[in-house]
Amino acid sequence: MKILIGTNNAHKVREVRQILETELTGKFDLLTPADVFDEEIDVEETGLTLDKNAFLKADEFFSKSGIPCFADDTGLEINALHGHPGVRSARFAGEDCDDAANRKKALDLLKDVPDSDRSAQFRTVICFKDGTDTLYVHGVCPGKIIKEERGGEGFGYDSIFVPEGYEQTFAQMSAELKNKLSHRGKAVAKLVKILKDY
Amino acid sequence: MKILIGTNNAHKVREVRQILETELTGKFDLLTPADVFDEEIDVEETGLTLDKNAFLKADEFFSKSGIPCFADDTGLEINALHGHPGVRSARFAGEDCDDAANRKKALDLLKDVPDSDRSAQFRTVICFKDGTDTLYVHGVCPGKIIKEERGGEGFGYDSIFVPEGYEQTFAQMSAELKNKLSHRGKAVAKLVKILKDY
Repeated sequence: MKILIGTNNAHKVREVRQILETELTGKFDLLTPADVFDEEIDVEETGLTLDKNAFLKADEFFSKSGIPCFADDTGLEINALHGHPGVRSARFAGEDCDDAANRKKALDLLKDVPDSDRSAQFRTVICFKDGTDTLYVHGVCPGKIIKEERGGEGFGYDSIFVPEGYEQTFAQMSAELKNKLSHRGKAVAKLVKILKDY
Repeated sequence: MKILIGTNNAHKVREVRQILETELTGKFDLLTPADVFDEEIDVEETGLTLDKNAFLKADEFFSKSGIPCFADDTGLEINALHGHPGVRSARFAGEDCDDAANRKKALDLLKDVPDSDRSAQFRTVICFKDGTDTLYVHGVCPGKIIKEERGGEGFGYDSIFVPEGYEQTFAQMSAELKNKLSHRGKAVAKLVKILKDY
């Protein structure tokens, strides 16, 4: 089954590829936008929820390609910040800011917050869309925000997030371990389960 | 797995029960609103699309019960009427009108339309919702609108709709045959396929 991943984010493509390979080798022929389009498709993420933004991306890439498509949107919900940055995680420090600026803003805001109140969760919503159906699956990974960055793997907020039950940040883990625990790993695994008999 | 069907329509409950029994006996413990609530839950179908109305119902019944829930919304799309009545199928002849009035309106509007231009399709969208995920599946049944009602089974527009490849209307068929061909049967079967490994 041909399936297009609706993202221009190379980190996400790599991660999803790793997860799919572990889960179900050979079942899906995973295409990226670069395999399908001559020009980069840029989808404005104007939704107020992860579901909506995941839909906007899946819908646009499906409409333009006709290939069953899935796209994710992911947010870090910090409980001491009432769930922020959430849907604005990628642009927390401003439009077009980079991951480092976003992490810095989170750490600054949590500067005086004690260890006991630094819980957070990553949430991924994947939207899958083909000619008929639209499926949304969620994956959640609970954990906490530490006080200083640790580790060089991963991307986004990985270096300041320690998943529940572990001491390492996502950025200190092997891709294999991160994918097993992570929000995105869980959401992709659920989607695969659904699609394998589809 | 306990699963609640989010409808007060006894015809739909009966049909879904028949389909689930054929598909996967014993896997689902299908509950109806009467099994769960003391009072009737009435959801206003204010959506402009089948997807939206199916969501409104699934969401309301899930929120109030905490039980994984699915609800359908179904429309008859008559091509000579540019896809109408579609999402307004149940209230085509006016709010609180009955099935007979809706059928009469459709037949009246198609009075002078020749056989060759009376194609139509039934479309069902089922929305499934639990604490994390939201799944929309579609089922479509192509066919045509005949000139006079035939048959006493079924409900809604069944007695004026002949599915492609058949001579009988849905209202002249056994429940078993209708469920095999029908929009709702296809959508439920797809949902079952997804949920059985869920």
